[in-house]
Amino acid sequence: MPDTLPADSVGLVTPQQAHFDEPLALACGKTLPAYDLVYETYGKLNVERNNAVLICHALSGHHHAAGYHSMDERKPGWWDAHIGPGKTIDTNRFFVVSLNNLGGCHGTTGPCSINPDTGRQWGPDFPVMTVGDWVNSQARLADRLGIQRFAAVVGGSLGGMQVMQWSLAYPERIANAVVIAATPRLSAQNIAFNEVARQAIRSDPDFHGGWYAEHGTMPKRGLKLARMVGHITYLSEHSMGAKFGRDLRSDELNFGYDVEFQVESYLRYQGDMFSTAFDANTYLLMTKALDYFDPAAAHGGDLAAALAPANCPFLVMSFSTDWRFAPERSRELVDALVRAGKPVSYAEIESPHGHDAFLLPDVRYQAVFGGFMKRVARDITRAGDK
Amino acid sequence: MPDTLPADSVGLVTPQQAHFDEPLALACGKTLPAYDLVYETYGKLNVERNNAVLICHALSGHHHAAGYHSMDERKPGWWDAHIGPGKTIDTNRFFVVSLNNLGGCHGTTGPCSINPDTGRQWGPDFPVMTVGDWVNSQARLADRLGIQRFAAVVGGSLGGMQVMQWSLAYPERIANAVVIAATPRLSAQNIAFNEVARQAIRSDPDFHGGWYAEHGTMPKRGLKLARMVGHITYLSEHSMGAKFGRDLRSDELNFGYDVEFQVESYLRYQGDMFSTAFDANTYLLMTKALDYFDPAAAHGGDLAAALAPANCPFLVMSFSTDWRFAPERSRELVDALVRAGKPVSYAEIESPHGHDAFLLPDVRYQAVFGGFMKRVARDITRAGDK
Repeated sequence: MPDTLPADSVGLVTPQQAHFDEPLALACGKTLPAYDLVYETYGKLNVERNNAVLICHALSGHHHAAGYHSMDERKPGWWDAHIGPGKTIDTNRFFVVSLNNLGGCHGTTGPCSINPDTGRQWGPDFPVMTVGDWVNSQARLADRLGIQRFAAVVGGSLGGMQVMQWSLAYPERIANAVVIAATPRLSAQNIAFNEVARQAIRSDPDFHGGWYAEHGTMPKRGLKLARMVGHITYLSEHSMGAKFGRDLRSDELNFGYDVEFQVESYLRYQGDMFSTAFDANTYLLMTKALDYFDPAAAHGGDLAAALAPANCPFLVMSFSTDWRFAPERSRELVDALVRAGKPVSYAEIESPHGHDAFLLPDVRYQAVFGGFMKRVARDITRAGDK
Repeated sequence: MPDTLPADSVGLVTPQQAHFDEPLALACGKTLPAYDLVYETYGKLNVERNNAVLICHALSGHHHAAGYHSMDERKPGWWDAHIGPGKTIDTNRFFVVSLNNLGGCHGTTGPCSINPDTGRQWGPDFPVMTVGDWVNSQARLADRLGIQRFAAVVGGSLGGMQVMQWSLAYPERIANAVVIAATPRLSAQNIAFNEVARQAIRSDPDFHGGWYAEHGTMPKRGLKLARMVGHITYLSEHSMGAKFGRDLRSDELNFGYDVEFQVESYLRYQGDMFSTAFDANTYLLMTKALDYFDPAAAHGGDLAAALAPANCPFLVMSFSTDWRFAPERSRELVDALVRAGKPVSYAEIESPHGHDAFLLPDVRYQAVFGGFMKRVARDITRAGDK
């Protein structure tokens, strides 16, 4: 809760909502008849409408990427470290658009919304979404905002997959792609961790096949476990060690199953908080979207062939201790882009913070990312000069 | 189920049971009034009684390390690849003792046994065990078998911790120590994974605070999740990728929550099997023993100082893709042994199989391990010649 807003904050922001009546055909074969997208914008769209930057969120993210909803808000948006006046994504130059994706639980149409066919919540009947579906819906939001072409589409983790998809599905509508701590496809181990999370949620007796809201319950135990597993994979072994080590909660071992080590306490707390704040059906759906993404699959596994339609410069970044989507996975993408003859810059950032590093400030990360975005801004200015 | 027993098998074996009436004082402050240890032996104890090798089991292990209980048994004991006539631990030379540890669920006194004070199963009242408690009970078994000094104590993973403890608690009773794929203490990440497993079990409504047997239930959901998480950490990312990749169960994605990827099917199956075969209270207790082990703690974190009492040659082995107890953790032990002036040989074995590599055959692993054991055998012969 800031007393005054920091000078480099986008300040107080208000989420907006766009309603869409045109049905959206989905990869799963179903059609979403109508939907709402909740989004925020920071900065101003210029007259040429060519300075827009789209932010794509990750697994548990949402539209509130920067600034504060009120002076009472304890923490700013999830990527506030990188979005604001003079920051990496400079809102003095860019018009930033950040939305909550379909299937989310922060205002955009999702499992908690009302299914017009039944008058009940969608719940588990909400269609499984893919990264491709999201990008199609984002393109419609761009249409609504009068943005023909984004100066850049930017995202970390699952957000980075959306950036890749933009470059393939709408190559003429994306001028630059920034893919951070992502992967062109999940490994078997990644899918395995997601499956543990799903089993934890789905086997919780309070899940009721996804109809927990109608039963007046929430699968909190399952969602807590899912978050605990996820959280371990977001941190590096090093950062967990540095933060908690083998520190005990009290002076002595209690030789029982109450919290003994600080790391247990931290994980339980994180899990508890998440289990009451996030929707379980949304969590399931987001993990599935991660699992499914695999643009190379339609090209016999040849990622370079899959990337052929891409038509913009890429910045790819990874973090040295990220073992969820390790640097090797980013290098796979970079190698394929090079093989496909696409312009790509790559930086592996030394960081102790594991996958979560993409959310945090870091001198070299900001220098590389900020340098790229400055060039994007210069290209806009030059286009305006012509 | 073998038609005939392989020539290098120890053959048909029968578990034995030793009853102990002397109370065992435990690290937690409680005392176990009496207990049974179930064990197997392979090979013959020589007249000098100096050719005994003790096998210490890991988290979900037990006494049945080699051979077959019957001709109908589908698979031999869990370390049959390494124990038998002419094998790494050569039963033509050694008298091998393998027991189920206290708190186990394979016949040794544990949570499923009757608490003499109440006439009910111990259940969650069974005391939390430590590696030190186990080693004390193993020393009593050695007394019972007339073994003053083991030619070698050998173990992988949690078993390797027991070997370290033997070298510190009973330095005069262990002639050689073989520590495989272990660590002198768990990292915060290791503890975190154990805590997820415990939370999964303890939050299962069928757990009933550990009194599930009295409620006629089993916390199968929780134990299944615990095993799924554990299983991911036993395999390397590479081996999961090589075994399953992104292979689908059927031809197409089903865009739902049934099994889609082969790796999901495998994990669910492993979890289901384990959840009906293993006791949940035992699983909890074993993970706690792992968390607690930390000989350096009593020496201000100085592992070399903690190792001062050790008085035997060590063989330490690790596996290149083991990320549960990575080679770095073995090197910590090796470095401390060197600093403490103890004789130690170390080999890091290249293997794609992650932590599970310690259970599998491998040319270099067997060459190093077997070479060390041949020297142990020669020392016994020489002692006999004197």
